[in-house]
Formats: sequence, structure tokens, C-alpha cells
Amino acid sequence: MQEVKSLYAAACDLYNKLQPHYGACKTLFVAAHAKLLENADYSHFGNYAGTPTVPYYVFLLKAPRVASRPVRPDLYLSDPKDFLSRHDEFIASLQTAPQSWNEQQRTCANRVIYTAVLSVACCYDLWQRGSRKTPGTFFEILIAGILQVMLPHAAFTKHIPLASLLHDKDVEEAAAEPESVDGSDVSTDVAASTQPDSEKDSGVSTDLVIGIRDQPGGIVVPLKITTRERIVQPFAHQRILDSAFGEGVYKSLLMCISETQLDEKTQSVKQVCVPGTIKLFQKYLARLSGIYYCDVPQRYAAEDMKRTVIVKSVGDFFADVSEFLAAHGAR
Amino acid sequence: MQEVKSLYAAACDLYNKLQPHYGACKTLFVAAHAKLLENADYSHFGNYAGTPTVPYYVFLLKAPRVASRPVRPDLYLSDPKDFLSRHDEFIASLQTAPQSWNEQQRTCANRVIYTAVLSVACCYDLWQRGSRKTPGTFFEILIAGILQVMLPHAAFTKHIPLASLLHDKDVEEAAAEPESVDGSDVSTDVAASTQPDSEKDSGVSTDLVIGIRDQPGGIVVPLKITTRERIVQPFAHQRILDSAFGEGVYKSLLMCISETQLDEKTQSVKQVCVPGTIKLFQKYLARLSGIYYCDVPQRYAAEDMKRTVIVKSVGDFFADVSEFLAAHGAR
Repeated sequence: MQEVKSLYAAACDLYNKLQPHYGACKTLFVAAHAKLLENADYSHFGNYAGTPTVPYYVFLLKAPRVASRPVRPDLYLSDPKDFLSRHDEFIASLQTAPQSWNEQQRTCANRVIYTAVLSVACCYDLWQRGSRKTPGTFFEILIAGILQVMLPHAAFTKHIPLASLLHDKDVEEAAAEPESVDGSDVSTDVAASTQPDSEKDSGVSTDLVIGIRDQPGGIVVPLKITTRERIVQPFAHQRILDSAFGEGVYKSLLMCISETQLDEKTQSVKQVCVPGTIKLFQKYLARLSGIYYCDVPQRYAAEDMKRTVIVKSVGDFFADVSEFLAAHGAR
Repeated sequence: MQEVKSLYAAACDLYNKLQPHYGACKTLFVAAHAKLLENADYSHFGNYAGTPTVPYYVFLLKAPRVASRPVRPDLYLSDPKDFLSRHDEFIASLQTAPQSWNEQQRTCANRVIYTAVLSVACCYDLWQRGSRKTPGTFFEILIAGILQVMLPHAAFTKHIPLASLLHDKDVEEAAAEPESVDGSDVSTDVAASTQPDSEKDSGVSTDLVIGIRDQPGGIVVPLKITTRERIVQPFAHQRILDSAFGEGVYKSLLMCISETQLDEKTQSVKQVCVPGTIKLFQKYLARLSGIYYCDVPQRYAAEDMKRTVIVKSVGDFFADVSEFLAAHGAR
């Protein structure tokens, strides 16, 4: 596990220094993928009792018994050669306009990202359980890395303190202040994860932002990997941006993965969903422009949800980003 | 501690059954106050390094050493007779219009509430550390009880699921759903505290609401006792209510207490403040009508904060509630 941890630290370090870091991400998830294959069992755990039933696997240590989070075998690329060849295919397809990707290319993007994120997350589940925030942080670093490969000329920023984004002198101090002194437990941000001593205000920083050079506005990409993070955050941020800049200047595309929970007692898996909350927030708090899952929960694919908010696969995310930027003359 | 715990359960039970429960609250905080006096040391711990310096005490067990949260000796009524006589004075003054209270009556209200809440909280700090949510729940039950004494004809509700408040069929399911399956750790609500097995959506329920009979709207009273709870919640709820009903129909009066943190290393106390975040939310998310502290943090009493939001003592809260209801012909 020491190797995985060092590779993770190296990727964080490059990301924090704003240097190209996708290569470091790849080295990390390839190592994590290999470690799981070598040192853990990968087998069926139980099902999500939906229509249809969705089977879930876990990575497993036997003595003492430790199970990783649930993994979808229809998405996870367990064979290393297969994973690598699809990975290369995905990276190559980033050189073409994602709007023109066919269904197979979108599925490929979705599965490669799912496999990369879950490999790292499951390693931490099995061998470094205390690092609860690392999977979320890696998810963010990885997506930032992919977007940089896809959009070498875009203006990226990360963790924008909304106060400084607003250039509002009276609220500038929000950028520096922690919401709570022990808030490190509830934040997904890189700074807090790699600098465990730092205090961090998780309430007023966005996740990734894809800006457009010489134009105001852009795409905010909040990332959510566990059910512990609050769904209210991306909606509240979008509302603040709408209030400050006018509606439509910033758009939020929420990206999610693996919002599931094992139930050891019943040997089953729950897909944790809050459709009513999302409808409520979408209608009365602010509008997200889309929610993108690697593993779309069944409930969110239902007709009533489609009336409220766009829910798609992560494979569709890149096309939507690309389209938005093209509409602003930025690609 | 068994007695305190039973008295707490009894108060919760009445509250959940919507029966008068102030008497049960009083029995509880009197017992907690007496237990601390009898079984713990009460002495100076350290200072908040402000201007001026603010001394803090703690309740202390010696072997093994356990310290309660910080307590302000200028607010906490440590003498039982003094506490009881001021308590009775406070309850009696609830029969008169709080708008006409003099400074001494407001201070009295503030100190009595501070003492009652901190007595129960410090008992749990010392003898039942696992029950992290109980102090917050008791804070809510107590304030609800006081308001019922003060406003016997008001229409109270608690934990209104915003979805049902909105009578919006499409979002009704939010009332029933948990935001996260392990969300019990981050909620202050009574249901989750007294029914530990229930799942609860902390994202879309308000705290107390004081309604006006036969009129829409009312006063929402979010309560916040620790720094772990997110400050975004009351602002997001206010925004949802503004969007759904129009601005001004519902007003939020946030009530806070004891947002401090011990630093054992430096033997000092921090007042945890997020002035920039509050300014940001107040300006761009929604307007709270006031923030009321028993122990107003020094930073929030500064001039720049006054331009943004009303910050007053809990002693002023009752006058503001009363005034709002009078303006709506309800008292």
C-alpha cells in the first residue's frame, strides 16, 4: 500500500503545483488496479433489488474479513490488458470532439473513469480505511487531469473561494476561513486531504471550474463520491453564482460516482437516492445544468426525474462541456 | 447520569407527542445543573484571546481527566438558588410583551437559557460523550417549550419537511427520504436522536416554525449549537421559502450557542466564526432576519457585520418574534 500512497501523494503534489498531472494519475490507478488483482478477491457480494436487479461485486480480504465498497462488474474493467487498451482508446478519443462520440466511445469513457476511480477507492477501503477523503480527492484530481488533456487551452481553476470569485471586498475573508475547526472530516478538497493540518472552509469553495479565457463565467464541476457529502452544496453555490453574475453565466455540471451502501446483514446493496430533495432544490434553490453518473442510480433514470433535471452518464459529460465551450466560442 | 438520561427521554417523548413539555425540560436542566455541581469541578480553563480577553471555565472530571465544552462564567448561573430565582423571573416575564423588557430582563433571559442548555450539554460531555447530538436536540426542545409558554395560541410545527410545506406533489417524496443512510451523525433533529434507527433527511427539514393561524408564512427558527453543523442550511432553506412563497412570507431567525472550541495544548478557547461566509450567504444566497447568540462571538459584534446581518443576544430574540407576530395581527 506504501507504493499506492506515494503515487497518490505525487499526483496531489503536481496538481497542487498546477503542473500536468494526468500521467501521475495514470501511474497511480494502474498500480491500484494491479494491487487489487494481486492481493484481494473480487467476487459477487449481493444485489440491488431494483427492476432489473443489479448485481454488485466487492474486493475482499479474508482474514480479517474486510470488504471494499460495492463495485458494478458491468462497468469495472477487471482485466488489466482490457483496461489499458480501453484507457488508451478513451484518451485518444479526447482528441476528437466528444459531441461526435458514438455510443461505444461514451460507454468506454464511462467505464475507464469508473475503473480508475474505484481501483483507488477500493485500495483505500481495504488497506487504508482511515483516509476517508482520499477517494473523493482522487476523483477530483483525475477529472481535472482528463479535462486538461481534452482542453489544453482552457482556463482551469480549482476550489475557487466564491468570495474571491466575486471580487467582493466585503466577503473576501470567506476565502480564508474555516467553516468549522474540525471541518476536515467533511470536505473533499485536495488542500485538506494532502495538508491534514490546514483548516478549510468547505462551505464556500467550489470544486473544479472550467473558465473561458477573457470571458466571465464558465462551468463549475462539483464532484461527489460518497453519500456523506451534502447535496445542498452544489445547488447553494449555483444560486450564489446566479445572484452575483446573473443566471446562465456559470453552469454547474455535478459529477457523481458510487453512491451506494453495502448492507452486510442482508447481503445486499442500496443505491442511495434523494430524488425528492433534488427536485426541491432544482425547483426552488437553483438549477444544475446536469447530473452525470458513471453508475446512474435506477431511481434517477425514471421519467419523473427527467422532467426536473438532466441525468446522464459521465460518458456524456465531455460532450456537454465541449458543446458549452463551443457555444461560447472557446473551442 | 441514568437520571439525566431518563429525564431527557421523557422530555423528548412529550415533545414528540406534541404535548406541553416545558415542565419536563425544567426538571431535566435542574437535575443536570445539580449533578454538575455535585460531581464535577468548575474552574477556569483558559481565555479567548480577544479584545477584551474572555475567560472560559470548564466542568472537569479528574481521573481520568475529562473536560466539558467551554463555559462563560459571566453567563452561566452556577449557584442553584440564583439560577432558580432568575429562571422564575424569566418565565414570569414571558407573560408580558417582550418588546417592553428592559435590559436586565433580556440579560436574565439570555443567562437562564445559556445555563439550562450548557448544564445538559456539559453533563453529556462528561458522562455520555457518545451522544453528540443530544445537546443540540435539547436546545431545540427547550426553545420550543419556552415559545409555547410565551405563545400559547401560536401554531407550532417542528421539522417541517420543506416539500410538504410547499404542497408540491412532485417533491413530496423529499419529506420521507434520508439524504444519506449514515446521515444520523450530522443531524440535530429530535427524531434522529430519540429514534436512533430512523433514517432522516437533514437536508430538507426546517427546525422549529412559529406559524400564524389562518395565514401563510411564519418564523423559522434554525438552531445551531456546535460548529459541526453547516451554516449553509438555514440560508438554503430561507432561499427555498423565498422562491416558493415570495420574499418576506417566512423569516428565519437563527439561534446559536456555544460555538467555541477548547485548545488543550495552549489552554485557550477559540470562538469559531465565519464572518465572510455569513456575509457571502446573506448577500447572495438568502437573507436571514437575525442571528441570536447567548454568547455573541466578539467578531460578530464588529461594525462590518452589523452592515450585513442583525446579530443580537437571545434575550432580544423574544422581542423580535413578538414584534413580527404583532405586525401580522397574531398576538
